[in-house]
Amino acid sequence: MTIAENPVRNGVDTATLFATIDAVKGDPDIAKFRFRATNTWMSGTHNRSTIHGFHGAKQEMNHREPFTFDADHPPVLVGTDNGPTPVEYVLHALAACLTAGIANIAAARGVNLTAVRSVVEGDIDLLGILGLSDSVRNGYRQIKVTFHVEGDADDATLREIVEQSRRRSAVYDALTNPTPVEVEVVTF
Amino acid sequence: MTIAENPVRNGVDTATLFATIDAVKGDPDIAKFRFRATNTWMSGTHNRSTIHGFHGAKQEMNHREPFTFDADHPPVLVGTDNGPTPVEYVLHALAACLTAGIANIAAARGVNLTAVRSVVEGDIDLLGILGLSDSVRNGYRQIKVTFHVEGDADDATLREIVEQSRRRSAVYDALTNPTPVEVEVVTF
Repeated sequence: MTIAENPVRNGVDTATLFATIDAVKGDPDIAKFRFRATNTWMSGTHNRSTIHGFHGAKQEMNHREPFTFDADHPPVLVGTDNGPTPVEYVLHALAACLTAGIANIAAARGVNLTAVRSVVEGDIDLLGILGLSDSVRNGYRQIKVTFHVEGDADDATLREIVEQSRRRSAVYDALTNPTPVEVEVVTF
Repeated sequence: MTIAENPVRNGVDTATLFATIDAVKGDPDIAKFRFRATNTWMSGTHNRSTIHGFHGAKQEMNHREPFTFDADHPPVLVGTDNGPTPVEYVLHALAACLTAGIANIAAARGVNLTAVRSVVEGDIDLLGILGLSDSVRNGYRQIKVTFHVEGDADDATLREIVEQSRRRSAVYDALTNPTPVEVEVVTF
């Protein structure tokens, strides 16, 4: 089946996807993006981020609306539970990144998906962040993602689609490999 | 000033915070947590996570309500912009984690904060995830966090509070150091 016969598959506009990849091949600077979040402390462990503008394709752009997200700790971690913990947002980001990749890759390979669900679990020992141990790391000891994938392809093909998504996932890479993070402070 | 004189500072119940730390010292298993997110593919790059239950303090617990979050790609990345991109959620998680730590640590040290704001920017070259380069990483090349912190302490003290938060941040650690991630696939 050619792209022209079915340019939209899995909700992915494959014609536009391939055209975008071709455009980037012609001008790699299009692929340089800078994403941004701004955060404001509310009270205690409760704070709120806004995600709206970003730079990409050589221009400043906006999402169609500002998206805002509250983070907090639950009462057991001395918070007021106005939102998930920051580390839970990381699990969401990982699932979302892998899932978007699965949809794109399946579409590019001519596979129609009917369901993709996942559970992401992260094990963390809070002795680290509580400052009670120097040998326990602050972050997740391990993260496990379990995907349920259904579509009009055999088991091996569906597994290969998930594997290719993992190989090209931005969030998977950000977690499994070191990412340089600089923290600057302005007091006033 | 003793804790008893002002148990709540910066919205942080310091008495409960110290009691929690003491409880964990007495039984370190309390500190073992397993966080969880479930994700469902909607269409294309659009998918939705729910964050509700988690395991901690030796029991299964729930947030006071299920929190749901949509992720998507903007049109320039062949999506329908129903939410931020997964990598933008990572920036939010980092800001949220560092900010919660700042509030807790300042409270523990008797510093009253009046404002904490931050901007987190992440540079990413999409040649990686588009499969157009094997030398460009999939994730962020670098992330920069800029904090504006205001409170009743001198510049050096406020900076030291931010630095201590960085040293004990779960999300900072998850990004700057390798985190093991296992991906399992079930087809049906």
